[in-house]
Amino acid sequence: MAPARTDGGPPGFVHARRLAIEWGDCDPAGIVFYPRYFAMFDASTAALFAAALGMGKAAMLRRFGIIGIPMVDTRAWFHAPSRFGDEVAIESRVTAFRRSSFDVAHRLLRADGTLGVEGFETRVWAARHPEDPERIRGVPVPEEVVAAFAAARA
Amino acid sequence: MAPARTDGGPPGFVHARRLAIEWGDCDPAGIVFYPRYFAMFDASTAALFAAALGMGKAAMLRRFGIIGIPMVDTRAWFHAPSRFGDEVAIESRVTAFRRSSFDVAHRLLRADGTLGVEGFETRVWAARHPEDPERIRGVPVPEEVVAAFAAARA
Amino acid sequence: MAPARTDGGPPGFVHARRLAIEWGDCDPAGIVFYPRYFAMFDASTAALFAAALGMGKAAMLRRFGIIGIPMVDTRAWFHAPSRFGDEVAIESRVTAFRRSSFDVAHRLLRADGTLGVEGFETRVWAARHPEDPERIRGVPVPEEVVAAFAAARA
Amino acid sequence: MAPARTDGGPPGFVHARRLAIEWGDCDPAGIVFYPRYFAMFDASTAALFAAALGMGKAAMLRRFGIIGIPMVDTRAWFHAPSRFGDEVAIESRVTAFRRSSFDVAHRLLRADGTLGVEGFETRVWAARHPEDPERIRGVPVPEEVVAAFAAARA
Repeated sequence: MAPARTDGGPPGFVHARRLAIEWGDCDPAGIVFYPRYFAMFDASTAALFAAALGMGKAAMLRRFGIIGIPMVDTRAWFHAPSRFGDEVAIESRVTAFRRSSFDVAHRLLRADGTLGVEGFETRVWAARHPEDPERIRGVPVPEEVVAAFAAARA
Repeated sequence: MAPARTDGGPPGFVHARRLAIEWGDCDPAGIVFYPRYFAMFDASTAALFAAALGMGKAAMLRRFGIIGIPMVDTRAWFHAPSRFGDEVAIESRVTAFRRSSFDVAHRLLRADGTLGVEGFETRVWAARHPEDPERIRGVPVPEEVVAAFAAARA
Repeated sequence: MAPARTDGGPPGFVHARRLAIEWGDCDPAGIVFYPRYFAMFDASTAALFAAALGMGKAAMLRRFGIIGIPMVDTRAWFHAPSRFGDEVAIESRVTAFRRSSFDVAHRLLRADGTLGVEGFETRVWAARHPEDPERIRGVPVPEEVVAAFAAARA
Repeated sequence: MAPARTDGGPPGFVHARRLAIEWGDCDPAGIVFYPRYFAMFDASTAALFAAALGMGKAAMLRRFGIIGIPMVDTRAWFHAPSRFGDEVAIESRVTAFRRSSFDVAHRLLRADGTLGVEGFETRVWAARHPEDPERIRGVPVPEEVVAAFAAARA
């Protein structure tokens, strides 16, 4: 089994979801086209927040007046490939909350339990700029959000 | 302008290509859905090798008997968003060749010349395993490939 | 509720699956970017065959010596949009088997039961050409496949 | 060469663009994953309007106060596959303007001039509903738009 590149940081609320690798996720080598993993991780982060906050992403954006949680920095290590028809699980958790940004770590596990992909991301809690709707800027992560993750962990 | 996170390493052959950000590349916040940048970078790496070797990716795979150049590790920093209708340029270069792997750095520049995204990737020069066609393994990067990049730089 | 454009043809085995509309499926108008519906339908056809045959697509390709079931003709009607966070169901069935091709109809139903999208497709049961592996050609749909759908309907 | 399924309707302004088929556009059979053709056609429709109107899609949406040109009905016939590394051309034109909708036809030609894919689409000129921003409704296609296409044809 591939050695993990991240330890995932301090213990926290972990959300796991299962998904099937589809034909359309794969490239001419027969394995997942790696940008698709980032799309899977993006949906996993949305599912993680939905589980912790008890509301979907659309409701979350409305509730907190944000436009999204855009990516600032993301990295992934590909330890072993997946193929169409494979069933995988993605485990996701927030590893750090800062003033207006936060980190998420993902682990994609293959059907046999081996580590397929690790992902790391830093995102911003972002709103439209009040004076220029074309611009986006970070705003403080609400205490209610941080508290919901702390409560979910317990 | 955002500070670059990478210096790009030693001087080398740089290939640049221009592309348009399309409606379908963008998300409900109106900016590029970040997995699409990885797809753009994947095509940029293919274009970089095509320019250095004087043959397209399909010809390259046949010529060297490989199945692809799968990703091992990739990272990107998102400094400033792009929107549909934007024209961007991506500059790409190999920053290191190792025995059976290599590194590529990408810089996506926006129309005004500011740095939008930086990407970094480590890939493997990969062939099917001779005893198990389901498996993929790294094989040595041909000297001819390394030499072509050195010649292209000159 | 939008009037259906297809009646779906004769009764047959129907496979339904539920899925969530993700942020990355949606465009700057906040609704699903329509090519994504075709990717969803492609996965639904794979799931339909998996349910009828009792094996996944990868196993099906190996079992019958085909390279895929490429699309010849596809059409979709978009009756009502879906947004990220929506839960939808896709009902799929084969409406006709011919010598080396077949038709599939899909209905995407929104959470409130209204018809969101209808899809229709004609695909070929395709193998590599024996004399030119670059070419693909239709081959007869195995009787076993047709029989499995008939049995699944019962 | 494959027989065309559409004659394209009356003569009109045709916009052509060239593009490269990328590795990430292709599936495990080594040919373009067909939903990608729809994404290519979507960008071709945007390029067609940009050429006729002399402004990009973002400027067009602002200029005419619309949210987009969502798809109502689309169909494609796949005559011959394309592979990564192929250079193709897409020719697009509006075949009909109606009160608040219009039709577009696309022809994807392969490097050898043969017809690869034909696409047909009906779209709506759409604005947000004034009383419910979650809803989208068709509004009249501006005379200025129809006139620009007529002038471009001349």
